[in-house]
Order: sequence, then structure tokens, then C-alpha cells
Amino acid sequence: MRILIIGGNGTIGRTVTSRLEEKHEVIIAGRTSGDVTVDIADLESVRRMFDSVGKLDAVVCIAGEAKWDHFDKLSEEDFYVGIKSKLMGQVNLVKVGKEFINPGGSITLTTGILADDPVEMTTSAAMVNGAIHSFVKAVVLELDNVRVNAVSAGVVEDAYEKYKDYFPGHNPVSMNKVVNGYIKSVEGKINGQVIRVIE
Amino acid sequence: MRILIIGGNGTIGRTVTSRLEEKHEVIIAGRTSGDVTVDIADLESVRRMFDSVGKLDAVVCIAGEAKWDHFDKLSEEDFYVGIKSKLMGQVNLVKVGKEFINPGGSITLTTGILADDPVEMTTSAAMVNGAIHSFVKAVVLELDNVRVNAVSAGVVEDAYEKYKDYFPGHNPVSMNKVVNGYIKSVEGKINGQVIRVIE
Ligand SMILES: NC(=O)c1ccc[n+]([C@@H]2O[C@H](COP(=O)([O-])OP(=O)(O)OC[C@H]3O[C@@H](n4cnc5c(N)ncnc54)[C@H](OP(=O)(O)O)[C@@H]3O)[C@@H](O)[C@H]2O)c1
Ligand SMILES: NC(=O)c1ccc[n+]([C@@H]2O[C@H](COP(=O)([O-])OP(=O)(O)OC[C@H]3O[C@@H](n4cnc5c(N)ncnc54)[C@H](OP(=O)(O)O)[C@@H]3O)[C@@H](O)[C@H]2O)c1
Repeated sequence: MRILIIGGNGTIGRTVTSRLEEKHEVIIAGRTSGDVTVDIADLESVRRMFDSVGKLDAVVCIAGEAKWDHFDKLSEEDFYVGIKSKLMGQVNLVKVGKEFINPGGSITLTTGILADDPVEMTTSAAMVNGAIHSFVKAVVLELDNVRVNAVSAGVVEDAYEKYKDYFPGHNPVSMNKVVNGYIKSVEGKINGQVIRVIE
Repeated sequence: MRILIIGGNGTIGRTVTSRLEEKHEVIIAGRTSGDVTVDIADLESVRRMFDSVGKLDAVVCIAGEAKWDHFDKLSEEDFYVGIKSKLMGQVNLVKVGKEFINPGGSITLTTGILADDPVEMTTSAAMVNGAIHSFVKAVVLELDNVRVNAVSAGVVEDAYEKYKDYFPGHNPVSMNKVVNGYIKSVEGKINGQVIRVIE
């Protein structure tokens, strides 16, 4: 398969890339590095990326941000960071990307455990994750020949030291299991699913 | 209790209003009618509403829109109709409203079955509903003395004729049960819950 991974140089992305490279041709996109650069929050940039990359069998997005802060401190504008990036950025990837996917191919988005099991300071991050979960279920009702799934992982072991104080009592999830979530979507046949990798 | 119902003149809102009026003082807000007018999509308008209404024991929002159309036809701007109204409108109600709620009081938001069980043309509507579900779970981790819940109903019987062609095989839900969802949030003690009223 010919696979585009947006965020393919990130913490999760680089491991997914290594695994997929064993069997497939992988093209990496990122905001500042990669074979092609893109800002998923910008629809025109997304269009340029797909035009330059051409036909694909799979798109995997492991990118997108949301602002973390106490609810009292998050301004309306702060909420729009996540809405533009992790939410509408991923919606835009499906919108434009579906035209570039060969029949039976897939688009795999990334959300996270905060949708179901949030912690303090994540009203915005939880919200965009939950939005994508429902979006995935809805969009597959209207797509033929392109599958769409989301991987929703807990804190991965590689990021656990950095985030553990924010996630009291959460168990780090093995990177291997998280990568398998992406493999299940890309190499399997499932569609419209939220693949939860939380233990 | 002193209760503000935004959308209190709408299809669901007017029945919730009648029920709550049996035991409580109800103030109705709406975009074009009611005791006070407000556009929940506009943070300043939300602020003005709460300033003019003063202290409350409960806020109930049964208002907010999202654009329905085929995914292919929904522009980025179309998605922002729902993001600004039903999503950020309700986030803004919690943000400003919590300062006006007496201890132990509640804010009840409205989503809908599309978050879990979407139909064609609802990528945007499903998305904003799912976003609010996760937001509710996250925001209660940071609020003291104010409860927040969401009521997620199926198509109510009073709107079934209008919507039934869009919801093949969905069973209309009794208005009485939907109203009970709001009563459970307002008069009960639950917090951080999505109250699903789907059968
Ligand atoms: N780490 C975890 O434990 C965990 C768990 C569950 C879910 N997640 C989610 O998984 C995703 C990736 O997490 P991560 O920890 O791997 O993040 P990361 O290490 O920060 O990597 C993110 C990657 O995405 C790229 N990126 C960010 N914003 C972008 C944009 N607007 N357009 C294009 N590329 C963009 C970055 O490129 P540049 O470096 O060039 O900016 C980077 O390569 C996030 O959505 C995160 O919420 C993470
Ligand atoms: N009907 C159903 O079967 C059903 C099922 C599940 C969920 N829901 C959800 O429940 C909510 C209400 O549905 P409904 O059928 O009762 O709707 P409706 O009959 O159209 O009533 C909506 C009410 O909300 C007000 N409103 C709309 N946008 C507003 C805004 N931006 N600011 C302030 N007020 C606003 C309207 O006031 P004006 O008339 O003055 O504009 C109206 O009073 C919606 O979010 C809907 O998605 C409905």
C-alpha cells in the first residue's frame, strides 16, 4: 500500500511509521518536517498536500492539538485552537483525502482517552476527541469505498513520564498495542469504528 | 427553584417549561421570544442575559443548531454553524452561567441521539453532540457546587412527522420521557452524566 502519515515524525507517529514501513510505502507529512509539510488546520494547505502526493491506499493522521488549561482560564479563542486543529483539521483531511484514496482504502484519525475519561484541564481536548468519535460514525454512512476509523489511546508509555502528573491513576499503554490499533484500521477491513487502546 | 430555560418556547422546551412551572419559577430565554432574548452563539449576548436575569438555581438549554447536509456539500463554514451555536454556545452557557448558579444548582445541556446513532447528512450535528458529551464529563472535574449534565434524546414524538424520513427505523420517543430527563438533572443530584432518552 501507499500510505500518507500526517504527524509521522511525532511520538506515536514515528513508531507507526516504522511498523508500516516494513510492508508498505510510507510518505510522512508534518508541520515542520517530513516528505511534505502541511498545517491540517488550514484547508488550503491540506488541499496542496494531497495534490502533491497523489493517489493513496491509506491516510493516517496522528497530529492535531488542543489547548490544555483550567476551564476558567480557557478563553473562547483557546477553545478554537482545538476546534481548528484536531477537530476541523481531521474533518478536512477526510473531506479532501477521500478523493485521493483508492477503492477500499482507509483514513485513520487520532483522538484519545480524554473523550471518555477526561482529567483536569481537558475540557477542550476532551471535547474535540468526542466530536471526532461521533463524526467518524456519521461520515461512514455517506462514503463508498473509503473506510474511516479513529484510534483512541490512553497515555502511551513513551509519553508517560511527561504526562503522568496530569493523569493520576491512569495506566500507561504499551506503544505496541497503540500501533496495532492503527494497523487494525489500515490493514483490516473495519469501518466507522473507534478503536480504543486503553490498557 | 428559580430556573432559566433557554429555548423554553421550542418544541421540547415548551413542554419542559410547563412541567417545571408546576413547582418552580421559570424564566424563558429565546432568540426571538421569551422573557429575555439571547443568541447563545454570541458570548457577549450570553453575558448580558445572565446579568439581566441574576441568581438562579438551574439553567436548562434546549436550544442550538447545526447545519444538516450531505458531507460532500457541507463547507467548512457550514460546520462552524454548529460549532458556534450548539457546541460553543452551550460551552459559553456553562462558562458564564456557573457564576450565577446558587450552590448545588445545575446546568442542563441538550445534545441528541445523533452523537451515538447518526443518520445521513448529520456529520456536523453528530459531531457537536459528541463534543458536548465529552465536554460534560470533563467540565464537572473542575466545578464545585454546580452540576452539569446533558440530555440526549431520540426524535421526540412531537417532531416525528417532520423528521421521520431522515430517521429510518428510529422509534419516536415519548415527550414525557424526554421531559423526565430534564427533571432528573434539575431536581435530582446527578452530575457529569449524559442522560440518554432513546426509547
Ligand atoms: N502521546 C500520547 O500518550 C497520546 C495518547 C492518546 C492520544 N494522543 C494523540 O495523538 C496525537 C499525536 O500525539 P503525539 O504525542 O505523538 O504528539 P507529538 O509527539 O507532538 O507529534 C505530533 C506530530 O503531529 C504534527 N502536527 C501537529 N500539529 C500539526 C498540524 N496542525 N498540521 C500538521 N502536522 C501537525 C507534528 O509536527 P511538527 O513537530 O512539525 O509540529 C508532530 O510530528 C495527538 O492528537 C494526541 O492528542 C497522544
Ligand atoms: N426535536 C427533537 O426530536 C430533538 C431530539 C433530540 C435532540 N433535539 C435537540 O433539542 C434542541 C431543541 O430542539 P427542538 O426540536 O425543541 O427545537 P425548536 O423547536 O427549533 O426550538 C429551539 C428553540 O431554541 C431557540 N434557539 C435556537 N437557536 C438559538 C440561539 N442561537 N440562541 C438562543 N436561542 C436559540 C429557538 O428560539 P427562536 O425560535 O426564537 O429562534 C427555539 O425557542 C436542539 O438542540 C435539537 O437538536 C431535538
